Formats: sequence, C-alpha cells, structure tokens
Amino acid sequence: MPKGSKNCSVQVSLGERSYPIRITSAKLDKLGPEVAARTESSHAVIVTQPSIGRRYAGLVAQSLRAAGIKVRRLNVPEGDRNKSLKTAARLYDSLLDLGADRNTAMLALGGGVVGDLTGYVAATFMRGIPFVQIPTTLLAMVDASIGGKTAINLSRGKNLVGVFYQPRLVWADVATLQTLPRKLISCGLAEVIKHAAIWDASLFELLERDIERILALQEDVLIPIIKRNCEIKAEIVSLDEYEEDLRTLLNFGHTVGHAVEGLRRYRGEHGDAVAIGMVYAGRYSEELGYAPIGTSERIRSLVERANLPTELPDFSRKRYLHALRVDKKRSGSHIKYVVLEDIGRAKTVSLRPGEILPRRSGGRGFGFK
Amino acid sequence: MPKGSKNCSVQVSLGERSYPIRITSAKLDKLGPEVAARTESSHAVIVTQPSIGRRYAGLVAQSLRAAGIKVRRLNVPEGDRNKSLKTAARLYDSLLDLGADRNTAMLALGGGVVGDLTGYVAATFMRGIPFVQIPTTLLAMVDASIGGKTAINLSRGKNLVGVFYQPRLVWADVATLQTLPRKLISCGLAEVIKHAAIWDASLFELLERDIERILALQEDVLIPIIKRNCEIKAEIVSLDEYEEDLRTLLNFGHTVGHAVEGLRRYRGEHGDAVAIGMVYAGRYSEELGYAPIGTSERIRSLVERANLPTELPDFSRKRYLHALRVDKKRSGSHIKYVVLEDIGRAKTVSLRPGEILPRRSGGRGFGFK
Repeated sequence: MPKGSKNCSVQVSLGERSYPIRITSAKLDKLGPEVAARTESSHAVIVTQPSIGRRYAGLVAQSLRAAGIKVRRLNVPEGDRNKSLKTAARLYDSLLDLGADRNTAMLALGGGVVGDLTGYVAATFMRGIPFVQIPTTLLAMVDASIGGKTAINLSRGKNLVGVFYQPRLVWADVATLQTLPRKLISCGLAEVIKHAAIWDASLFELLERDIERILALQEDVLIPIIKRNCEIKAEIVSLDEYEEDLRTLLNFGHTVGHAVEGLRRYRGEHGDAVAIGMVYAGRYSEELGYAPIGTSERIRSLVERANLPTELPDFSRKRYLHALRVDKKRSGSHIKYVVLEDIGRAKTVSLRPGEILPRRSGGRGFGFK
Repeated sequence: MPKGSKNCSVQVSLGERSYPIRITSAKLDKLGPEVAARTESSHAVIVTQPSIGRRYAGLVAQSLRAAGIKVRRLNVPEGDRNKSLKTAARLYDSLLDLGADRNTAMLALGGGVVGDLTGYVAATFMRGIPFVQIPTTLLAMVDASIGGKTAINLSRGKNLVGVFYQPRLVWADVATLQTLPRKLISCGLAEVIKHAAIWDASLFELLERDIERILALQEDVLIPIIKRNCEIKAEIVSLDEYEEDLRTLLNFGHTVGHAVEGLRRYRGEHGDAVAIGMVYAGRYSEELGYAPIGTSERIRSLVERANLPTELPDFSRKRYLHALRVDKKRSGSHIKYVVLEDIGRAKTVSLRPGEILPRRSGGRGFGFK
C-alpha cells in the first residue's frame, strides 16, 4: 500500500467464511455494490443508534438502494446496558414486523455495542442471516468488528452470552472518527497498544514515535495503523477462530480490566479498564521475570501518552478477587492470564485469582497491601 | 450389527466436530465415562423436566459422579411454550449461580423441548460450552437430538431463534421409550416415515411391513429402525451442516405442518402436524406429476397405520396462506417446498404460498375450495 493511501483492504482467511475488511475515508456512499455482492440480499436492515444514524444512515441507505437493495432502519438506544437480552428480543420482533427472512442482511452501523448486539441477533435470527459490520469508532475498527465475536450482557456480567459468527464484510470509514469524542479515540488506542504489545514490536515502536499524531487523527499515519491492527487481529483470528489457544492472547490487559469494569459497575470506558489492566499485566510480567526490565515502563508510558489511566482504582484486594471469579477465561479455579515475554511477544499462564493479584511482600512495590 | 443387538453406534462426520450417537437399552447408568472422555469436563449440569428427571436423572448423575464429574440438576417446566427466551435467561442465571465456566458440560435429558432449549443455552453461554444430548422420546432420538439445530420460540412463531451447535455425544436409551405415552411414539414415527419417504425406499418397505411391531416397541425391530434413521439424518447433516441445500429435504411435510401448528396456536403435537403435511405433500407430488401414481396412497396409508392424522384441519385457505408467510424457509415471496419424486427420493421446488395451496380447479379433488 502506498503511504497515505485512502483505501486499503485486509482479508480475514476462514475458508468459506473468509471476508474482507475495507479501510476507506469518506466512502460510505460507495458500499452498496459490495454489500449486494457479499450478502446476495435484496433486503437489508440497518441497526444503529440515533446519534450515529442521524449522521450516516442516510448515506448508507442511499448507497444500498442504488445497488438495488430495499432498506429499513432500526434504532437501538445508546449505552452498553442496551446490549441486553431485552433489546435483542425487541430486535427479533422488529425483524418479524419488517417481514425479514433468511436472506435479509443486517448491517451494524456504529461502535462495539451496536456491532456486538446486531451480530448476536443476526447470528441467532432464523439460525443466522447475512451480517455486515460498519464500525464508526476506532475501537470497533481495530478490534470489535473483526473476528466474529458477538455478545450480550447479563445483569451479572458483560458479554456472558454470545456466539462466534463472522460478518460477510467489514467496511471501516475513518472519516467517521472525526466526529468522535477524543476520549473514545484514546479508548480505541488501548486495543491498538494491546495488539502491538502482544504481537508486533515494530508497531509498538511506531506508536511510540507517532502516538500524538494518531490522536490528532492525521490520516497518513492513522490509516496504516488501522490497517496493521486489522492484519494482526485477522491473523490471530484466522489461526484460532474459536479461541481455543492463540486467540486468548488478545485478552492481554482484559482479565484485570474486566474486574475493574465490574467493580465500577460498568460505569466508565472499556478502553480505560483495558489500559489499567495492561499496565498491571506489564508490571506483573516484569516483576515475575517473564519480561525484561524496562518492558513495564514502555507500556505505562505509551498508555499515559494516549491519555489513558495507568493505576488500579482503589478497591480492596478481596473485591478484586471476587470480581475475577466471573471471568469467562476461568477454567475451574484457574484463569488463563496473559503475560508479556517482551514487547511484541506474549503467552498465557494458568493462575489462581490470588496469584494474579498477590499480596505485596516485604518492601516490594508490586502487589496488594 | 447383528440383528437384535442392544448396543450400536452411528457417527456424525463433521471434521473436528464429529460425534457418535450411541443407541442402547437400559444403559443410562453407563454413560459417565463416555461423557467424561467426550467433554473433558469436571462439572456437569443436567437440564431436564420434572417428570423425566424423577425417573432418570438419578441414574445419569450417579454414572457421571462415578466417572469423577461433579453434577447439578436444573429443571425446566414441561411444555413447548417454555422453549422461550425467558426460560433461557433463567438458565443463564442458574448457570452463574452454580459457578459454571467454559468447561462445564450441559446435558439435555428429555425430549425435543429440553434438547432444543438446552442446546441453545449451551451454544450461547460464554460463546459455547460442551453439550450432550440424552434423548428420551422417539422424536428426539431419530431427529431432534441429531444435527445441531438448537431453537427458541418467539411469541410469533416456533424456532425463530437458534443457532447450529453440535453436541459432543448423543446417548439414546430405547428403554426410556417404554414409559412414553403411545401418542408420542406415533409422533416420533412421523419423522421416521419422513426419513424413509425422502431418502430410503427400503426403510419405507420395512415400515410398511413392521409398523405395528414398532408401535409396540419390540426392540428387535425398534433398535435397527432407530439406527437406520440416525444414519440417514447423520448422512444428510454431514453433507450439509448449515442447511444450504440438501438438508432442506428434511423439511418434507413441515411447510404445511408448521402452518397447521401455527393455526392451532401450537396446541397439539408436532408429529401430528408433520403427518398431515406429509400426506398433503404426497398428494401434491402425485397430482402435479412429480411422483408416480400410488405414491400418495402409500404415504397416507402408512401415516394412518402409525395412528397419525392425514387430513388438513378446517381453516380457510386465506388463513393457511397467511400462516405460510412466516415460514423460515421463505426467501422473499417464495418457499422451498419439498416434493417427492418417488418413495425414497425428494427434491425442492421454489413456490409461492398460493402455489403450495392452490384453489381446487374444476372437479379435481386436490386443492382448496
């Protein structure tokens, strides 16, 4: 790809279920023909949130109509708490109201909440209808929209219900990021830093060089960074679609991150929690001798420059341990915890919650009081 | 298999997701080691209904415990209307209460309602946990437990929500059929007749010879018949796991059957509705020249001998047409309707509801007034 190119593409290789990720800028009005080709649908339902729909649903619908697809729009309310069984049930009913059948395509236009929820409904309505992701946040572009994880929250935990279900197409338009609150750009960068930390030392160096320009959404650095992130996620997903092994590495920073989110009752950003979890895991990796000295500080420093928090919020060790026990990666009493062996290289270790969050021993700075 | 053997096995071939169907008699106390080997779970949850659980859950639990698996039991209320999102939500909560994780196995002990519901919850809880089918009705043994279709009803239609999710093991114990109401044996035979009609003329002849002995549950004929049905279903599913093509043939009798069920508001047996749908489809196939003369009468006669109904209940054509329009196999205005080309051979034709249920023309006996 020539530097600064405004259109590029990454393939997710999963046999018959392979699909392309298109990375574009200001091209939402061009997606119709590709949606038609990839879904073979004559009808489509755009699922979005009011704020995003107002800006972009018209463009998307117009492009679909020009490609011969009949289009309807469904709104879901803003907020992660609407990624619920109740909202899913409402969407099933709306699909029946609209006369949807097995060939009706569902398009998720929005961030991770819209993508996870719409994906779940598309995966389960009539045992699966064609699904397209149109991510409009950085987090969704580099992470949530790729790999087929769909999810619904239960009142007792996030993403506890879901299936693996691959989209037919991911269409990321970076121009939509321009209207995103700065805070959400930082939150997306948390997952970008994660990909670099576990998989690609040279991407990590690129971030160390350019993070301020990326935060400013300068497309000549932003588009290649998004592309590289999509490649990393696509590569890991292609090697381990159902998270039996390698894909667990993508959980770096998420074990403690999920505990933080639970303790905050999900008031707060996922990216903040992941940032805190990564800094914690970086320290853990260095203190326990998995990673060389200096690794932890590189993680902390980059996270801080991305305007993300670095320190654990002040809850008791007991409450953290309790929060870890609902982790999906738990197997019996153990959790697959991701540690770094170096910047760009990670592995999992099977640990009990008490080992992930040890008491502080003697004069050492790591661990809990 | 020697004639009259009490234990036999059929393999469902789906690559890494292949699994065996064990057909046994009075061997529920022996399934523990195989569940342990196939699921690698140290914890299991048996989902059942009170009436079935009272009879068999103790045996199953004891066998699992002897194999080193910790066991808990969950009851779901009797009745198809409990195959609902609400009951699924209750099961998710119960799983969390029991501390279930990704390695906890779910065992469905019962008929199609328990199997479809438990399968759906197992498929979606934490994006999929190990699942075992222990069917205790003839219908579940020859049909519902094989092939990975899981399902939930919506208030506006049956099985409108679901995913494909394969069990690790199906363990059918024909001794459990002895306590089943006779009516439910007939209903299971509806699907047996279906398999023979679309796939295996010699099985159809066997049924014509032995149907009364099968109804009397004589194991020397019953076990081979169940085995042959499992083989047919396994073969079709192995060739077309996600119902893109061949698997649609299993819908023989179900298009009109589902309409009948909808019009009766699901008060009544699925097998009765399928029986009516098959006799209708047999007549349709013969009248429109797809199948040779005599086909229709052979279907009708066998259905009647199985103590199943043969005639459409008295609703207006308009109401039938309306009921057809929520069919899952609908694609736009057309439905893939399964017709016979002969006993043992079927194909699909793409028809509008009005073509499936034509007005009666002139003096002909077929069609609607």
